[in-house]
Amino acid sequence: MAIPPTFLLAPDSFKESLSAKQVCMALEEGLRDAFPDAIYVHVPMADGGEGTMQSLVDATGGDLFTTTVRGPDGTSVEAQFAILGDGTTGVIEMASASGLGLVPAQARDPRTASTYGTGQLISACLDRGVSRLIIGLGGSATNDAGAGLAQALGARLVDADGADLPPGGAALARLARIDTRGVDPRLADLRIDAACDVTNPLCGPDGASAVYGPQKGASPSMVVELDGALRRFAQVVAADLGPDVAEVPGAGAAGGLGAGLLAFTQAELRRGVDIVIEHTGLARQVEAADVVITGEGRIDSQTPFGKTPFGVARMARAAGKPVIGIAGCLGDGFEVLYQDTFDVILPIIGRLDSLEATLAAGHENLRRTARNVGHLLKLSIPASTRN
Amino acid sequence: MAIPPTFLLAPDSFKESLSAKQVCMALEEGLRDAFPDAIYVHVPMADGGEGTMQSLVDATGGDLFTTTVRGPDGTSVEAQFAILGDGTTGVIEMASASGLGLVPAQARDPRTASTYGTGQLISACLDRGVSRLIIGLGGSATNDAGAGLAQALGARLVDADGADLPPGGAALARLARIDTRGVDPRLADLRIDAACDVTNPLCGPDGASAVYGPQKGASPSMVVELDGALRRFAQVVAADLGPDVAEVPGAGAAGGLGAGLLAFTQAELRRGVDIVIEHTGLARQVEAADVVITGEGRIDSQTPFGKTPFGVARMARAAGKPVIGIAGCLGDGFEVLYQDTFDVILPIIGRLDSLEATLAAGHENLRRTARNVGHLLKLSIPASTRN
Repeated sequence: MAIPPTFLLAPDSFKESLSAKQVCMALEEGLRDAFPDAIYVHVPMADGGEGTMQSLVDATGGDLFTTTVRGPDGTSVEAQFAILGDGTTGVIEMASASGLGLVPAQARDPRTASTYGTGQLISACLDRGVSRLIIGLGGSATNDAGAGLAQALGARLVDADGADLPPGGAALARLARIDTRGVDPRLADLRIDAACDVTNPLCGPDGASAVYGPQKGASPSMVVELDGALRRFAQVVAADLGPDVAEVPGAGAAGGLGAGLLAFTQAELRRGVDIVIEHTGLARQVEAADVVITGEGRIDSQTPFGKTPFGVARMARAAGKPVIGIAGCLGDGFEVLYQDTFDVILPIIGRLDSLEATLAAGHENLRRTARNVGHLLKLSIPASTRN
Repeated sequence: MAIPPTFLLAPDSFKESLSAKQVCMALEEGLRDAFPDAIYVHVPMADGGEGTMQSLVDATGGDLFTTTVRGPDGTSVEAQFAILGDGTTGVIEMASASGLGLVPAQARDPRTASTYGTGQLISACLDRGVSRLIIGLGGSATNDAGAGLAQALGARLVDADGADLPPGGAALARLARIDTRGVDPRLADLRIDAACDVTNPLCGPDGASAVYGPQKGASPSMVVELDGALRRFAQVVAADLGPDVAEVPGAGAAGGLGAGLLAFTQAELRRGVDIVIEHTGLARQVEAADVVITGEGRIDSQTPFGKTPFGVARMARAAGKPVIGIAGCLGDGFEVLYQDTFDVILPIIGRLDSLEATLAAGHENLRRTARNVGHLLKLSIPASTRN
């Protein structure tokens, strides 16, 4: 009897349509039509953005928890965190505690918005005994370089008079000294992977305030004010804590939270998809697979810049495995991905319809596409005629 | 060195986007990415409807001609006919001489519209020495049971006073006698394949007048009038010419032209796709192919009822060849075609866009889809793991 082939299914979610786990299930359903006895390995993936926590929980058999923290504007919010299946890795998304979506448009103020709640989420993970932490940096409402996060974990940021600074990035203009004596001692042993797909430095024309401030409600004059405040923060960090974090690529991510994590914790800024690949043990699964299938709601010329399908495909290609991409839709320039990455990239749309109806048909369209992939893989063109 | 595989490309046109010949070219372009040295056999197909003449000309290396004939309302129109590559087979589409599109909506009158011009097209083919003729029956403006066609070819249809009937189906109510002594003698040796995908009889509730009269401008009272006239026609045909044509399935096609062809010529009513399959010599090409690819602008639950992809796929399947369907879009119920017909059916749309932009992207979408099919066929899942 023939040994059944192994299909590794490692897609991202199809945004607004299906979670990565649901995508895996639809793919398996379709492939089973041609390969009923194959082995199907589901590894729901993510790239550090929205859905990362859920995919990691699904991929590792972890658990989700909810806790109350201080939102970016100081009001209470319900935020989620996860403990992965290994029991020792926590996952948080900074947007869950300090995200732009938590503040009504009129109330947004990047001068006072704080990452305090994100620090509280880290405490909650520490309370559950984690030794590693994954933190997604996307979607922040803040521009405080992680000052609030540091305060929540016990650091004191004080002005020339020794008074604690109020919440928000603007106050950092008056920062005189950082006192870390009260910092949670468990933090010293916590290894943090910060998922960061941008390379902005903390300050200057490419910095957090200039590039991301406006979308958080900063006027041009506020941008100048905030940029000066973050520069001050970097100077005091260098003086009191040692490291020069301002110029590290990614320091400007999430309103400077990248810099704050580097300053106050044992953090590494990494591509989100690389973190997910590591924590899902994907390399091992790729080795065991005959065919690797990945995908996302959209595949286009941006996909090589840190998106899940590219990360998975590159790993599969390096291992010499055939790799098939499946996309909700194809955007301009997707063809670059044929170069040394994907064998094929297939869109799943069956007909022109409304966006709403198309998103609702996600499962069926994925199932059909996978069915066809299976049968094409199985079609026996006589081996002697292959070239 | 391995023998290169042979791909048979036998699609219909993608309506409003690409001719069948253009579809073949796009498919080859795409497949060449994975199979640069394969043999590509192009057989542009059709099903007897619009585009049939062009596809047959393209498939056989035939020639198109234009001639002036009498349109359905008596005014002159330019109509086309073709002589296929064998030099002995003519092709006409009745809609080219007697079609609904030749008469402005307000001027349409199925009581007086005549198939005279279609008879003239047959004469033009006979003048070029054809011994076989293919005639497409779709799209008629007429309801005259081919009376005009018979008159153009020399028959006399007279009333009780011996006077020739005027053009149109309504006059047939006064038909007393048919005199075929003046009919073009070359017609006796002309074998006609009439492409007909409907099974309507000439008269009655399922007849030409009741079912197709309204879309040609017939009011309910006109339908009754025309149905009676066709019944009279059938009676006189049976009395003067012998055959009882009224109940033959398809007699009601094209305003009763099916019946007229059976009455006045050596015609056989056949499925259009079967005629095209015969005249393109498709069976021979299927035998020589490793993979058969067909397709159409739309594949849905109607496709088994005489559409090109079904006819091609059935023949390929009977010969034990893998068969791949490619569709502009998939309509409801297309899955029935997986049953004993197609191995896979792939839509080509890459993204949601306007219909206009999607039709304009036809070549690119086909090329991409064929590229992916080629690479999936070529992907080597270890043979030992296939099940």
